[in-house]
Amino acid sequence: MNEIELIQTLTRSLPTNKSVVVGPGDDCAVLDVGLGDRFLLFKTDAIVQGVHFTRAAPPEKIGHKALGRCLSDIAAMAGTATAAVVTIGLPQNFVAGFVEKIYAGMGALARRYEVAIVGGETTANPERILISVALIGYVGRGKALLRSGAEVGDAIFVTGELGGSLAGKHLDFEPRLREAQFLAQNLPVHSMIDLSDGLATDLRHVLKASRVGAELLSTSIPISREARQASKAESSAKPPLLAALTDGEDFELLFTVAGKEAVPTLDAWKKRFPKLPLTCIGKITAGDNVTIRDKQGVRPLAAHGYAHFE
Amino acid sequence: MNEIELIQTLTRSLPTNKSVVVGPGDDCAVLDVGLGDRFLLFKTDAIVQGVHFTRAAPPEKIGHKALGRCLSDIAAMAGTATAAVVTIGLPQNFVAGFVEKIYAGMGALARRYEVAIVGGETTANPERILISVALIGYVGRGKALLRSGAEVGDAIFVTGELGGSLAGKHLDFEPRLREAQFLAQNLPVHSMIDLSDGLATDLRHVLKASRVGAELLSTSIPISREARQASKAESSAKPPLLAALTDGEDFELLFTVAGKEAVPTLDAWKKRFPKLPLTCIGKITAGDNVTIRDKQGVRPLAAHGYAHFE
Repeated sequence: MNEIELIQTLTRSLPTNKSVVVGPGDDCAVLDVGLGDRFLLFKTDAIVQGVHFTRAAPPEKIGHKALGRCLSDIAAMAGTATAAVVTIGLPQNFVAGFVEKIYAGMGALARRYEVAIVGGETTANPERILISVALIGYVGRGKALLRSGAEVGDAIFVTGELGGSLAGKHLDFEPRLREAQFLAQNLPVHSMIDLSDGLATDLRHVLKASRVGAELLSTSIPISREARQASKAESSAKPPLLAALTDGEDFELLFTVAGKEAVPTLDAWKKRFPKLPLTCIGKITAGDNVTIRDKQGVRPLAAHGYAHFE
Repeated sequence: MNEIELIQTLTRSLPTNKSVVVGPGDDCAVLDVGLGDRFLLFKTDAIVQGVHFTRAAPPEKIGHKALGRCLSDIAAMAGTATAAVVTIGLPQNFVAGFVEKIYAGMGALARRYEVAIVGGETTANPERILISVALIGYVGRGKALLRSGAEVGDAIFVTGELGGSLAGKHLDFEPRLREAQFLAQNLPVHSMIDLSDGLATDLRHVLKASRVGAELLSTSIPISREARQASKAESSAKPPLLAALTDGEDFELLFTVAGKEAVPTLDAWKKRFPKLPLTCIGKITAGDNVTIRDKQGVRPLAAHGYAHFE
C-alpha cells in the first residue's frame, strides 16, 4: 500500500461535525466556527531528517521549510495564516544551539507573515529530527479556492519555475501567500493547489477533485535553471521536462481560470508581480485523461510525482 | 540541557501577534480570533513508539492515547474541543491494518466528544511510529482556567487516583472534559492543569505560573491500586507515594479553589461525579517552596516527575 492508498483508506470514515465545511482532501480543512464572515483554515504538515532534509542542512532553513510548507497550503486556499503550534522530535544527543536555530528560521518566516507561534511539544525521536507544524488561518466565508473548482475550458497556470528544487529551493522557498491573496481578490480563479508533490501529481489532485481532465503543452512548462543544469551535469539525471513534472517541492501555485480570462490574468499578474513568472501550461478538458502535447502530437502523461512509501 | 531548559530557551522569543491572549506555557494557547464571546484554544502533543507506547500496545489504544493527551489539555483549560489534524510518521514496512486501527481508536474517542478529524499528514519516520495531534477548541471569553490563578490559602484538589499509569491507564484514560466543564461552570476555580508529567512536576508548573508555594499532606495523596501493587510485587519498585507523585501520565485534573470553598466543592463534586474520587491534597502557601507534611513533620518535596532527555 502506498501513501495515497493509505490516506484514502484512513480518510474514508473519519469523525466529522457540523463545523466542517471542507474536510480532508484539500490543501487545508475549512471550518465554520462562528467567525462571522470568515471561515477558519486548519492544516498540519511534517518534515523528517533523511526524508525532507539532510543532517547537513542549515538549521535555520530546516525551520523555514517546516513552517513554509504549511504556509504554502494556507496560500493554496487564498488564506491568511494566524498561529502555529510545533511538535519537534529530537534524538537524545541533540545540540541545543542547533534546535534554537531551527526555531530561529521558523520564527523569521513566521514574523514575515505575522504568524504567532503559540505552543509546542518536545519529545524524543531517537534516530532523527522530526518537525510537525500545525497552522490555523482564515479566509473569507465561501472564498477559499478549492481543488474542486476547475471547469472544462479553463486555462491552467503555474507560478515560478519547476523542478530541481533539491538543489536548494526546497529549503528556502517563499510561500506564495501574497500572490494567492492577490489572485483571489482580483481574478476569477476557479481552482487552486500548491505544488508540493510535483506538477504531474498535484495537477491530478485538481483533476480528480473537479472530475475533469487536462492537456498540457510540453513547450510551455516553465523549467527551472536548476533542473536544466542537473540534466546537463549528469547523464543519468532526469530530462529537464520530467524533472519539472515530477521533482516536487516547488511550492508554487497551480490555478485555473476560464479560458477567456487567460490573457487578462497574465496582464494583471505582470503588473503586480513583474519578477515572478506566471505561465499558462495547458487547459482543462472533459473526461479524466491527462495528456501532453509536443512536436510528436498528443500522448497520455505517464509521469507521476513524488510519493512516500513507494 | 534537559527538556524544560530547552523549552524555556525556545519559547523566550517566539513570534506573536495581536490574536494571542495566552501563548506558550499553559495547557493550551488561547487566541482571540473574532469569535465573539469565545476564545479559540490551540494545542499540539505527540507520542512516539518506544517512548510513550511499546510495539506490543494495541493499535486502537495508541490512537486513543494520541488524541486523548491533547483532549486532556483542552480539559485543563475547561474548554470544548472542535477539530483535530494528525501527523503520523511510519516506518517503510508499516502494516496498513495496524495504522487503520490506530485511526479507529482515535476516531472512537473523537466521536465521543464530537471532535472532527479534518486533516492529516503521513510521512516516513523509518525507525518508529510517531503521532502528533493538533487540536482546536474553544472556551468562553475570559473563562479559560489557567495555571497562573492559584492564590495563597487555596485548597489543592486532584481528581482520580495517581501513579502506576504504565500498568494500563496511560493507554485508555478518559480525558476529563466533562469534569472540567462542570468545575468551570459551577465552582469558583482559581487555577487548573492536567497531570501528564506527574503531580510533583505539574503542581510546580501551577506554583511557578502563580508565584506561590504549596504544602501537600502526605496521607491525602490518592494512590492508585496499580501503584500499590507494583510496589508490593517488586522490591526495587518506587514506594507507592513516590509513584503517585512522579509516575506521570495520570491525565487527571489538578485545580485550586479558595480554602473556604473546599467543602462546598467536595459536596458538589460528589453529587455530580459519585464514582470519580476528588481529593484535597494540600494548600497553596506564600513563597515558592513545595513541602510535604507527614508523621515526621514538614519537609521539602524532593521528588520531580518525568522529563524527556534526562
